[in-house]
Parts: sequence; C-alpha cells; structure tokens
Amino acid sequence: MAHTATSQLRIDANRLSSRILGLADLGTTRLAFSEEDRRGRALTMDMMRAAGLVVSVDAASNIIGRRPGLTPGPTILTGSHVDTVRNGGRFDGVLGCVAAIEVLHTLEEASHVTRHPLEVVTFTNEEGQIYAGLAGSRAMVGALTRDDLAERNATGCTLAEAIAEWGGEPARLDDARREPGDLLAYVELHVEQGGVLEQRGVSIGVVQGIVTLLQVEVIARGAARHSGTTPMSLRHDALVAAARFITTVDEEIRSGTLCHVGTVGRLDVSPNSPNIVPGEVRLTLELRDLGDAAVDRALDRLRTRAGEIALACGVELAFLEPRRFPAAAAAPTVIAAITRAANQLGLASYTMPSGAGHDAQMLARIAPMGMIFVPSAGGISHAEDEFTSDTDCANGANVLLRTILELDASEP
Amino acid sequence: MAHTATSQLRIDANRLSSRILGLADLGTTRLAFSEEDRRGRALTMDMMRAAGLVVSVDAASNIIGRRPGLTPGPTILTGSHVDTVRNGGRFDGVLGCVAAIEVLHTLEEASHVTRHPLEVVTFTNEEGQIYAGLAGSRAMVGALTRDDLAERNATGCTLAEAIAEWGGEPARLDDARREPGDLLAYVELHVEQGGVLEQRGVSIGVVQGIVTLLQVEVIARGAARHSGTTPMSLRHDALVAAARFITTVDEEIRSGTLCHVGTVGRLDVSPNSPNIVPGEVRLTLELRDLGDAAVDRALDRLRTRAGEIALACGVELAFLEPRRFPAAAAAPTVIAAITRAANQLGLASYTMPSGAGHDAQMLARIAPMGMIFVPSAGGISHAEDEFTSDTDCANGANVLLRTILELDASEP
Repeated sequence: MAHTATSQLRIDANRLSSRILGLADLGTTRLAFSEEDRRGRALTMDMMRAAGLVVSVDAASNIIGRRPGLTPGPTILTGSHVDTVRNGGRFDGVLGCVAAIEVLHTLEEASHVTRHPLEVVTFTNEEGQIYAGLAGSRAMVGALTRDDLAERNATGCTLAEAIAEWGGEPARLDDARREPGDLLAYVELHVEQGGVLEQRGVSIGVVQGIVTLLQVEVIARGAARHSGTTPMSLRHDALVAAARFITTVDEEIRSGTLCHVGTVGRLDVSPNSPNIVPGEVRLTLELRDLGDAAVDRALDRLRTRAGEIALACGVELAFLEPRRFPAAAAAPTVIAAITRAANQLGLASYTMPSGAGHDAQMLARIAPMGMIFVPSAGGISHAEDEFTSDTDCANGANVLLRTILELDASEP
Repeated sequence: MAHTATSQLRIDANRLSSRILGLADLGTTRLAFSEEDRRGRALTMDMMRAAGLVVSVDAASNIIGRRPGLTPGPTILTGSHVDTVRNGGRFDGVLGCVAAIEVLHTLEEASHVTRHPLEVVTFTNEEGQIYAGLAGSRAMVGALTRDDLAERNATGCTLAEAIAEWGGEPARLDDARREPGDLLAYVELHVEQGGVLEQRGVSIGVVQGIVTLLQVEVIARGAARHSGTTPMSLRHDALVAAARFITTVDEEIRSGTLCHVGTVGRLDVSPNSPNIVPGEVRLTLELRDLGDAAVDRALDRLRTRAGEIALACGVELAFLEPRRFPAAAAAPTVIAAITRAANQLGLASYTMPSGAGHDAQMLARIAPMGMIFVPSAGGISHAEDEFTSDTDCANGANVLLRTILELDASEP
C-alpha cells in the first residue's frame, strides 16, 4: 500500500471507546497483581489477538503483541499499562494500551505492512501501589534488580513470585531486556493528568521529556508547650516554622527562576492537639523539573531559606536524605514525528513537560522516546472522575497511528 | 494566738514534698473516676484527717476537709484537684491540694484558730479527659447541668453514675452548691504550667485572672491535584493557604495589639500524599486573653486576613462556629493579699494572667477568687517531666498560708 493511501487511515473511534469502557467495567481499582489486574490483562490479550497480533508474556510478565514488518528490525514499540491506583480512573494507562492495539488493528484491517516490526506492550505494575512501580519497564531496560525482585507485599509474597504468577520468569529476567538498537522508537499515548491542554484549548500535548523528581522529608523540631501558659515570645512553634517554609516554597517556585513545580503534599503535626503548641512537624517537599540542575538549585535555595526561618523561629528545620528520580528527555526525532502527525490531522499541539512519571522514562534509556498527551478534564487524575472525551481519545490514537507511520517512513 | 506569732508560722517543707511524692507513687495517669483516681482521693482524705480536718464528700463527690473558725462563716476555701491527664505530671493539681492540707495542718499544730472557718477542697474531675472537665467546681457554683450529668463514657456509664460511685449524690446536686456570700474567698495554689516565672527569675506569680478561651475550626478547601502535572498557576493548594494563615496568626498575635496568645495546634491535611496538591486542610485556631473583647477583636482581624488569603490563593477559608469559655477575673482584695504575703516572706512576685483553665475560674462566679503560681521548670506541664522544685513548692505553700491569714485578718 502506498504512502498516499496510509495518509487517509483513521482508527475506529467507536471500537476504541468501547474497549476503554470494557476495561473500566472490570472496576477502576486494579492494583497490580490483583484479581482485577489479571482480568484486565486477559482482556488486553484478547484485544491483541483480535487485532491479529502474536501475543506473548516476557520474563518480567509484560504482555507483548507483535506485528511483523517487511524487515526483521529494529522494532517500533508502543503501549502503556492497565494496572491502576486505588479508586483510579478509566483512562490512565488504559488509553495508551487500547489505542496502541487499535492502531495495529487499523493497520491489520488495511492490510498495511510497515517496514519495521511493530509491538504493543502492556507493562507490569506501573503504578507501584504495592511493590515499587515501573517494574515491567525497568526490567525491559535492565534496571530491575535482585533487591527489587525480593521486595515483599503485606502477605510476604515477593515481586519475583508475583511476576511468576503473572506468567513471567523472574529467574530469566534478562530475557525481557531490550538493548540499545533493538527499538527504533518507543511512543506512548497518555492522558495529561493535568489541566494545561484544557486551559489552552489544545488537543495534543507533545512531551519534551519526563521531569526529574526529588523528594525530601523535612522535620521541624520545636518545643511542645501548653498553648495557654506559653507566651508568644517563649514559643518554639514547629508548625509556625513549617508554615513559613511552605509559604516560602510556594513563593520561590512561583517566581519561576528555580524549577517547574514544588509541592508540600504531606504534613503531620505532633502532638496535634488544639491546646498544645506543636512540638514537631514532618513534611514532604517534592520538586520537579525537566532539568536535574534546576531541581538541585531549587533545593539549595530552599535549604538556605529554611536556615533563615529556623533561626527566626528558634525551631530546627532538618532535611533528610533526598530521593531522586532522574529526568528523561524525549528524542527530537520522535517529538518532530508527533508534531508532524498532529499537523497532518489539523490538530493544534503544545510542547510540554510530563510532570508525572511513566514507563516511557525507563524506555528512554535504551531507545528514542516520545509521548503524546491528550486533555484531562479539569486536570483530574488518579481519581474516579478522571475524564477524557471520546474525541480527544480518538485524536490521540490517530496521532499515535500517524506518528508510527512517520517514524516507519523516516528511517532508511 | 496573737497575730505577731502567726507571722512566724511556716509550713513543713519536707512533709509537703513527701506527700506530693506519695501521690506520684500512685502513678501519674490518674484519670478522673479511674482506680488510680480513687486511690489518690483516699490518700488525700487520709492527709486531711491527719491534719485534724473533718472530712466529707459533697453531692458532686468533691472532697471537703473543714476546720472551724471562731465565727460560723463565711468560709475561706482553698484546694485544687488530684485527677490528671494521661501521662501527666506530679504537681498539676496535686500541689494545690497537698499545700492546702499542709497549711491547715500547720495551723492545727500551732493551735491557731482563725476567725473564719477554713475548708480544703479536692475537686472532682478537673482535667476532663473522659467527661467534660471542671465538673466538681461547676457543681459547686450551680453550673453543672442535667445534660452534663447524662454524659456517657466509652462504656456507657453516665457522669451521674460515676459521681455516685465516688460517694456523691447526683440527685441532690444542689446540696453541693455554695451561694454568693458563703465564701469569704477562694484561693488556689498551682504550678504555672508555662515558663514566664522561670524566665523572669521570680518565685511567685500573682494571677490577675483566668483568660477567656475561644476555639474555632478553620477549613481550607482547595482542589486535590497531581503534583507533577499541575503547574503552580493552576493550583488551589489548601495547605499553602493554611500555611499563610498560620504565619499571619503568628505575626498578628505577636504584634501585641490583638490578644495574649493565638495558637494553631491541630492541623490535618487531606489526602496527605507527597505527590498530591492538598485539597483540604482542617485546623484549630485558639485565642486567649484576659479580656473577652480582645479575643473577639483578634478573631475579627484574623477573619479579615483569612479572606484576603483565600482570595489570593483561590482557596476557600471557612470558619466554623467558635466555642467560648469566658474569662474570670481575680478579686483585687485577694490579689492584694497574695502580693502582701509574698512581700512579707521576701519573695519576688509577678502579676500575670493564667493562660490555662482552673477550678478557680468557676469559683470566681460566687466568691472573690485568687491564684498563686509557682515556676514550672522549662515551662513543661501535662507531661511526665513536669517539675517544680521543693523550694518553689514550699514558697508557694507559705504564700498560701500567709494569704489565708491576711484574708482572715482583713475582714471584720
């Protein structure tokens, strides 16, 4: 089939929407390795077979659906995950999996054989609600360790055992590994999970990269005292110091000179009684940016400001050891292919960072990576009222289809 | 015995300290109506009998030890409570009871008969850990209602039943009531529970009055969103709004123009997850001052400031209905008597508010009231490391003795 013909190809929007709802019907709490997750995976495999794909489960229990190309490789890989958070939404992960299958189904129905083999992947345990997340994609890039496999859930079951139960072979984990050069590209369609596209009235987000994430616990240590008998001048109020710090984080990050976002999401007061001046506050500071240096600069600046606050309040502000998740840049070739695809379909696109983590950040270690975002209504995600319209889902899937064709055509 | 002789009278400091330790030996978790409380009360009654007092239990189960005077009345009443908070200290309440008994014991040993009858009281359930507090003192001033008596603990036992178990007669509660004119004065010795006296190096605090207390719950309602995908400009962060409010409370109260103290002691974040912008924060604001008007003015000012913060943050800040506990002024005659007593003993005194609530605030409704404070080491109270030195305890008891003699002498 000639290139002129493929430019008219469109996915089946009704089938796409119906399959998304089919997964939602299994319940939107599908924690990885739960019975609901098993049913979601089984349904995904059914869809892959209906699309004419050769289905297999790799050593990390990732589900792979393969469609051969005119050449043996490298392969274009696309997909996402079908596990969810507790009381999650219908679109997070599911859209990327179902749309990937839909794209290959559309090519199958059009009898269009690409030059490169195409594969759809449903990654194991992306959300990390029980075991640490991104398990399947970490295995695929060789970043899932023996220690990771030994992690236990509340009932003592290891990740290795859970993977084996799901059809994987944890003892032969390297079999799941892809090497640089194996993949021509990895492309993932996902709901934005934020409100930027909706706010701008744009249908397609072109992801520049997945941000670096730094999390650090900060402990304010003052002195718990009777609130009635301790004058203001004799107080060492841990909550007042924490409040000044939170206000400072917000102001510093909003100044736009440090990093993309900064959040204090968790805060616990001790003893947390109305008539006791708080003696200790523990809070989490989270910083994200496309650039690792920006996050480090922000942390430095906030540490300095915390030192000033501690001095002014007579309260210790201690930073524990930060946890870091490095940034992953999208490949310029994939960014360009997605942008062209959106243009060809007459869809406005907007280049933006992904503030959330995705399997794509792992795949970026071994392959040119790109992500397509579609709007999340009200910016709501990881919640039952997460919503993306049928039109936006179909637009995203069509951009995925065209991106894959662009990538397939652009390489010799 | 002539007045010149009584001026040389001193309490027995060793007996005082030993009796304080005797109560502590029963454990410092003596919740009202517990087995430990029963033992504490029994020990108190033994001490009263050893001091030559006529011991009775009134209808509200307050323990009364009486020493007749040369005239039938009015009576000078002194005392405190022996129930504690969970993991409380050795001095809160206990000092006032044991010192009152010690004062009357000293007079008994000196064979000094006062003009007015003297009574020592150990009030029932001051701390209010299970049932609402100040139960005995409320009964004594006619402020314990039928509804109060019907309050149930976790096992369904009413306050009335608990009082009956402790030897009271809840059906004849009015028998416990004292009328205006029955008491010449009520004087209570208590540990400061704050760090003001220690800070100033002063032995004796002369209480001007017990502050009014206003407690109000404030709810910040924003929008819970993914911390990675929600830019700063699209956030409605309930915790940032709460933090600005807490900072503002601290600044406004420290300005010294509003009220004595203001505290945010309890704060709960929802959903309280490191990677979710907080959607809701509930916090308690507590304001205290000797003047009711000052507290109202502070609340008004903080409501106005909260409105500005809400507007700036795009977060609702709702104030629920405040709870109020009115202020109780000490009587100038009793303040003067305490001050003279300290002077006579060569002890520096400092006039100050009581930020904490005490049985004395109830007694102020029917009698001239006064309180004597002694230093709390490090300002620590309601904790096992609450500490007041033997010297400070003895100084307080001697000031109580002299105050009672001053009051006894000053009235015709």
